Amino acid sequence: MGVKAAQIITSGFAEEVGGEGEEQQRRIREIAEKYDMAVCGPNSEGFANMGLDFCPTFSPAVDDPNTPLLPEFRKDGRIGVVAQSGGMGFAFYDRGRPKQLPFSYVVTTGNEACLEGFQLVEYMLDEDGTDVIVMFIEDIKTPSLFPSVAEKAVRAGKPIIVTKIGHSRAGQRAAASHTAALAGSYAAYNAMFQRYGVIEGRDIEEIVDIAAGFSYWRNRLPKGKRVGIITGSGGAGGWMADTAIAAGLSVPTLDGTTREAIDAYLPSYGTSQNPVDGTAQAIRTVGYANLSKMVAASNEVDAIIAISSARNASRYEAEFDAMAKVGRESEKPIFFNSYTMPKPEGFEIIGRAGYPLFTNMRNCAHVVACLADYRAFREQFLKAPEVSTKLNRPSGAADILQSGGDNLTEFQAKLVLKAYGVEIPEEALSVDANSAVDAAALIEGPVALKVQSPDILHKTEAGAVALGLEGADAVREGYETVMARAQAYRNTAKIDGVLVQPMAPAGREIILGINRDEAFGQMLMVGLGGVYVEVMRDVVFAPVPLRADEAHAMLERLQGKALLWGVRGDPPADISALVDLMVTVSRIADDWCDEIAEIDLNPVLVHPEGQGLSVVDALIVKQAGD
Amino acid sequence: MGVKAAQIITSGFAEEVGGEGEEQQRRIREIAEKYDMAVCGPNSEGFANMGLDFCPTFSPAVDDPNTPLLPEFRKDGRIGVVAQSGGMGFAFYDRGRPKQLPFSYVVTTGNEACLEGFQLVEYMLDEDGTDVIVMFIEDIKTPSLFPSVAEKAVRAGKPIIVTKIGHSRAGQRAAASHTAALAGSYAAYNAMFQRYGVIEGRDIEEIVDIAAGFSYWRNRLPKGKRVGIITGSGGAGGWMADTAIAAGLSVPTLDGTTREAIDAYLPSYGTSQNPVDGTAQAIRTVGYANLSKMVAASNEVDAIIAISSARNASRYEAEFDAMAKVGRESEKPIFFNSYTMPKPEGFEIIGRAGYPLFTNMRNCAHVVACLADYRAFREQFLKAPEVSTKLNRPSGAADILQSGGDNLTEFQAKLVLKAYGVEIPEEALSVDANSAVDAAALIEGPVALKVQSPDILHKTEAGAVALGLEGADAVREGYETVMARAQAYRNTAKIDGVLVQPMAPAGREIILGINRDEAFGQMLMVGLGGVYVEVMRDVVFAPVPLRADEAHAMLERLQGKALLWGVRGDPPADISALVDLMVTVSRIADDWCDEIAEIDLNPVLVHPEGQGLSVVDALIVKQAGD
Repeated sequence: MGVKAAQIITSGFAEEVGGEGEEQQRRIREIAEKYDMAVCGPNSEGFANMGLDFCPTFSPAVDDPNTPLLPEFRKDGRIGVVAQSGGMGFAFYDRGRPKQLPFSYVVTTGNEACLEGFQLVEYMLDEDGTDVIVMFIEDIKTPSLFPSVAEKAVRAGKPIIVTKIGHSRAGQRAAASHTAALAGSYAAYNAMFQRYGVIEGRDIEEIVDIAAGFSYWRNRLPKGKRVGIITGSGGAGGWMADTAIAAGLSVPTLDGTTREAIDAYLPSYGTSQNPVDGTAQAIRTVGYANLSKMVAASNEVDAIIAISSARNASRYEAEFDAMAKVGRESEKPIFFNSYTMPKPEGFEIIGRAGYPLFTNMRNCAHVVACLADYRAFREQFLKAPEVSTKLNRPSGAADILQSGGDNLTEFQAKLVLKAYGVEIPEEALSVDANSAVDAAALIEGPVALKVQSPDILHKTEAGAVALGLEGADAVREGYETVMARAQAYRNTAKIDGVLVQPMAPAGREIILGINRDEAFGQMLMVGLGGVYVEVMRDVVFAPVPLRADEAHAMLERLQGKALLWGVRGDPPADISALVDLMVTVSRIADDWCDEIAEIDLNPVLVHPEGQGLSVVDALIVKQAGD
Repeated sequence: MGVKAAQIITSGFAEEVGGEGEEQQRRIREIAEKYDMAVCGPNSEGFANMGLDFCPTFSPAVDDPNTPLLPEFRKDGRIGVVAQSGGMGFAFYDRGRPKQLPFSYVVTTGNEACLEGFQLVEYMLDEDGTDVIVMFIEDIKTPSLFPSVAEKAVRAGKPIIVTKIGHSRAGQRAAASHTAALAGSYAAYNAMFQRYGVIEGRDIEEIVDIAAGFSYWRNRLPKGKRVGIITGSGGAGGWMADTAIAAGLSVPTLDGTTREAIDAYLPSYGTSQNPVDGTAQAIRTVGYANLSKMVAASNEVDAIIAISSARNASRYEAEFDAMAKVGRESEKPIFFNSYTMPKPEGFEIIGRAGYPLFTNMRNCAHVVACLADYRAFREQFLKAPEVSTKLNRPSGAADILQSGGDNLTEFQAKLVLKAYGVEIPEEALSVDANSAVDAAALIEGPVALKVQSPDILHKTEAGAVALGLEGADAVREGYETVMARAQAYRNTAKIDGVLVQPMAPAGREIILGINRDEAFGQMLMVGLGGVYVEVMRDVVFAPVPLRADEAHAMLERLQGKALLWGVRGDPPADISALVDLMVTVSRIADDWCDEIAEIDLNPVLVHPEGQGLSVVDALIVKQAGD
């Protein structure tokens, strides 16, 4: 009939395991493809287009005839919602509308038989009627959509705020049965979000609050994380200071000039130190506008949190014009937080004056941190050069990767690293005790012997390793022991020989590797090795290839990063050598993404600054079926 | 004039640094003492007595003539607020009243010149018109009040929920200038709160929500942390599952019998696994009451979270009677969480039916965890025997503690430990090289030599330690070296001799000590030693004396506790030996609380289960002025 689009609300398709639903959903997709129809759903709750006042949905959230879909005073900073769950999609609107936030769309996509979430996001970006994106994600059906759309959003300066459910097994169970989502590894999702500056929110209210922060201040994001706190309640000020610091902000004492300017207006029981306790009295006489302006003038702060009791909005009427002027002109963003529960008029008058109003202290502080992080992320992202890979793949690496068996032994894997310029101390593969003794004689100091077999991936577990050997007798004996143990461990193992190498000097133990995520492909993992990995699960992931600044940022995200930067007066580790290795390993993985399934460098010992690192063990697992 | 009580609202007293305020506040205290008046304030915001409808306060929170101070349907589970900050005190009421929570009092205490927060709490406990206490604390003026009042609250089953501001320096600055509070160490406050099951909240909304949970379910607290989740929105169910697990709850799959019973009512696209996605349809036909009852019947769960959209309260009217019956009869507590923002009637009807209604997912999950923790804490607390100390102090310890100088050396400190039954391997104090050689000869294996001087507290830093010595020559040389270094380090140091001891076998490194907090006295600290302490600040504190179950709970709170319980197939450490040592050290500290300022056992090496531990170094610092 020439109909070009459809929204399917009906349930009972692929989310219904074992019935005919899956087949019927497949047919919907066929029909949509055949006629080039834009089909959203099935198993969705419809959508709302606020600009057109058009709401084909059964959600009661848009039913109230007394509430226009858009606030009258605020049409820019619009929030577009894309959600696999209808209930959650409209809940964002339900929570945000009373806060006088402007929404462009709420689209609920259900099973995503045809149209997917990130296609809708791309539409919103292209159309340019949306400034902030909010998403509820159970899965990404076509993972390759994500990077290009997310990058488009970063370039446009339009933040994407998401929740991806399925962190836990119970959450994965729910997602699977709800919209037939395939959970995928949350760690990989998280890594992809980090790569593209996508902000994860932890609950509905937090996501709405982050969106509010961007809706108001997206063009004047804080340049750093230092906040000035203005309050009429001393108690609330102290509490907010603690809360801000817990959120990763700092609350510096203000400079003398600023304090003098403020002190002129304070009663003797107020204080200008920061938090600036104006006391209820000064707030009334001096006003939020003037106080904010004075604090914003300090070079010590990047943003202002103004604490108020917005229960009774009338107090803001008297200084409305001054507040609106500061709201228009301030280069530093100002965030209101009310400790009492504001009436609707409170959101309206403070919003009209140009400020977001929060009611949750932790969210308010967190929003300031999110905005500052997004600014820093985006500046870094935009100035970073393209990483080009797959050009000039070293032929040395090609020979090994294309000839070897399923697994490359330590010796072979290190040849690949060497071909990419990684420094590996001289080492030799010996096939009998005599040549091992000869090889050891050429090495200064004690040596390590390790069996090399593609069938023995965990040499230490097999006991087929001998460490710290000195002198010909010890090496000869070591050689025999290592070979005997390898054969005892797996008598059918193909043995290439025994690797003779110098003992590595001490260093901070790091684990570095590549794994393949089903949805997003190769992921680089780095963590503090040894007990840290086991006890703290202190590892971070990122997609490949990786830029040096991204590698550095990954290390900054390690809980135990102080171990690298130096504790107890230890010198810092050679972080730039580690960053180089991470970048190189990511490039190897990307250059050979069809050949390499897994890389495992464990441990890498990172020596003090300027002294490089030692790759103590290495393994490359090739893709099956090559 | 015979007036027995006064509330002073006026500001300008001790919070005003450098003026006459401090003197005036002292005079208020004098007058109050002289006439035995109950004086609250100054610099307060007054109070509200909800039962008497009596509100001498300038807070607008109690001004609305259309809102009775107490909800009509709910008079029990009353919440009493005691706050140093007037703004914060009334903010709890402002947030809680629209949620239909019943309050008994809001008392704001300001500078606490006379009456203090915990005296007011004790009044509320004795009067028995309050079931849940909420506090905003800047400081505790008379710390000794805290333990007895807090214990009374635990025994009465009346939880205390607090925020103590001043975690950060900025928060401390604010508290000091606001109500002239002396911040004190937050770590010590936190330890005291843990000891008495006082629950810390992180923002106003969270505290009100925790209070709501206790207000409704204090007599039927969850027996564990396993929750069943009921939802009409699959998306909200999955999100809540993730949120619950992040809050420390578990979301187990339900048992077959329960699932069968539920499945009979579900459409094919619903699921009973847990989260139980009833779908909007089944929620409408089966109802929350029936679904809750079915899930509560499972032995797999201790509590229920029912997710709803309470925006429109009318849906609950149809099943009100059934909901009220389940609310009265259910042995397992049921918590409602709405993803849309409820209208006032939503709080009313769900509250009337007997359930708290939350609007913040993270808070809802956290409240369930808090209630379960409080139940477990209280059961443990009530059954624990009294710890009696200061009786039977071993005379061996008395001799050393009462005779020595300001600091006890390792040798002396270990004699104190020995007197309390701690096993210390044979060791000898040698005053010349020959006797050191003789002592070493009696010890199997290599020995350690350490200078013993009350003037050299950090022997390793001074280099006055020699480790792993074997044979007479090595010991003799070690002795001379250690002595020479000690003299080089501090040539005026009084040297008792050199301690000759066996090298300790390997073990998990623990740091264990006693420090004195200004407010709360002696605190035991335990942490994972070495880099863990430095990098992770992974230490916990508790007041002394300590019971074994408390010591065990402290270890459970260590982030890196897996190191003790065993990782990578390592055997677990001898945790019961460590617990014994913690209890003993706490008893020593308490027995000699006037004599001992500090104990430092660093490191303690804890060997595998059944093999005990080694106290490798020890130091006792005595109270100055003894």
